[in-house]
Amino acid sequence: MNSIAADPLPSWNDGPAKQAILAFIARVTEEGSPDFLPLAERIAVHDNDGTLWPENPMPFQAAFAIDELKGRSITEPELAADPMVQAALAGDFAKLLKGKHFDGLMRVAALTHAGMTTDEFRDAVEAWLASARHPRYGRPYDQLTYQPMQELLDFLLANGFKNFIVSGGGADFMRVWVERVYGIPPEQVVGSTARTKFELRESGPVLTKTLDYLFVNDKAGKPVGIHQYIGRRPTICCGNSDGDHAMLQYTTINNPRPSLGLIVHHTDSEREYAYDARTKSTGKLVEALKEAPQCGWLVVDMKQDWNAIFRPE
Amino acid sequence: MNSIAADPLPSWNDGPAKQAILAFIARVTEEGSPDFLPLAERIAVHDNDGTLWPENPMPFQAAFAIDELKGRSITEPELAADPMVQAALAGDFAKLLKGKHFDGLMRVAALTHAGMTTDEFRDAVEAWLASARHPRYGRPYDQLTYQPMQELLDFLLANGFKNFIVSGGGADFMRVWVERVYGIPPEQVVGSTARTKFELRESGPVLTKTLDYLFVNDKAGKPVGIHQYIGRRPTICCGNSDGDHAMLQYTTINNPRPSLGLIVHHTDSEREYAYDARTKSTGKLVEALKEAPQCGWLVVDMKQDWNAIFRPE
Repeated sequence: MNSIAADPLPSWNDGPAKQAILAFIARVTEEGSPDFLPLAERIAVHDNDGTLWPENPMPFQAAFAIDELKGRSITEPELAADPMVQAALAGDFAKLLKGKHFDGLMRVAALTHAGMTTDEFRDAVEAWLASARHPRYGRPYDQLTYQPMQELLDFLLANGFKNFIVSGGGADFMRVWVERVYGIPPEQVVGSTARTKFELRESGPVLTKTLDYLFVNDKAGKPVGIHQYIGRRPTICCGNSDGDHAMLQYTTINNPRPSLGLIVHHTDSEREYAYDARTKSTGKLVEALKEAPQCGWLVVDMKQDWNAIFRPE
Repeated sequence: MNSIAADPLPSWNDGPAKQAILAFIARVTEEGSPDFLPLAERIAVHDNDGTLWPENPMPFQAAFAIDELKGRSITEPELAADPMVQAALAGDFAKLLKGKHFDGLMRVAALTHAGMTTDEFRDAVEAWLASARHPRYGRPYDQLTYQPMQELLDFLLANGFKNFIVSGGGADFMRVWVERVYGIPPEQVVGSTARTKFELRESGPVLTKTLDYLFVNDKAGKPVGIHQYIGRRPTICCGNSDGDHAMLQYTTINNPRPSLGLIVHHTDSEREYAYDARTKSTGKLVEALKEAPQCGWLVVDMKQDWNAIFRPE
């Protein structure tokens, strides 16, 4: 037996970020601590794109959608004629990302995320994950999760926290792989959704995806999604952009429970990407970063604080 | 040590219903059984009104709404002038329950379930539960849960199942008390919802209830809600009415996993209520009952199968 406990966060360099995480967990889990959190209150919410895996050169779900369009435009001329499809196939991301909620991207999502059953959609995502490779790293997208965040998820789970994904990504897209990749079950995924339609076919019950009642789980939508799906305030919130600003506020400001807000700051252009105010795709980080000191949010410097970026191959 | 295991369902009379439940759980939890369910697939969904607690003389949430209106109509004349408020205060439930989705009831819900913060709403529900009494039983509403179903919830939990409420009732209404009463955490409640609005006030973050994007988690909405919140098919589904028909189908028809559908049939006018095709309020049971034999759904005869109805005082 080894009397020295193994380091639960080996991919985190010793420094203020790692120490702050370890100190917070010790403070809220030690019996008798004045800040002890009952198990039921150990709710941690994590953004996905840019927090648990990259969002460059574009959010991975957008890469999925574009690859789907590429495949289909060969045999579907009316699809190929759509200006947003053309923008997608031409790599004109600026055009796709215009508008308050990335309208072009949403149009592409509509063409690739509605009209099929949830089972058909799942199969399409699985087939894509099995074949597609990230343009820079050459690895399957679902192997590109951040190793330090994987360790944090495991560490939180080991300390009685329930991890939830709270992401602008589609719930149906994420649920295909989050259990395998993060150990997070589908019922702990809060994402963007639209309503499905139930139907009993000869083959059995099916749910068909539509775009009705679209809910974009981003920005002020994140606390709304957390309330709707989880029903109580989290005590840990990890994000990386202004899209996570509202849920950082919701988690930490005037929370009667002890709470931790954490921002992954992309500072490592060599191993990953470096951006905050100026982004390649999504992930703009200005307001939340400005508010971090006064709110006590922990800003993780990817370059300084992480000695590894991705899971080992 | 006692070598005879304690009966996990003491309020269930020995008979086919109890035996079917015990046999199913044994079949799916015994290591090496061909029907063994991995832990992740042990998802049980339970209707609430009429399945876990009564829905007579009206759904309890409607009683809450009417009591709220009673209190407020004294000081709010424009509220008192609303025809649906008058119907509610006159006990004209037939008028409230007219329409496809009980339109009058929804109007009353609008007046009592929107415009306040989620914290204010929670406080109102808690105050009501502390003071209101059921007209027939004279007990607080949240003490009137069915003891046999409480035992079933505990038995499922002990066997690795995750219990979810999947109810037409409001998620915000149920989440106030389900953890205390059923041991089910708020994040395992799927109910009717409308979108809240996030705002950072001086006092901290608040979510204000609206009626926008109303989702009625009933009938064909239940599989939709299950997919949206849980993200996979359940393997156990308990209901009591045609409102649960679609989720019974979704759970059991052509499910590659072993599954159990259970219908609580209200047959006991002495201890509780007797109804199916003709109801006092909600809870009509015709189609699901007709389909039960061919689908293999277990019909629980409340009078025959339960030796106790409510939790002991």
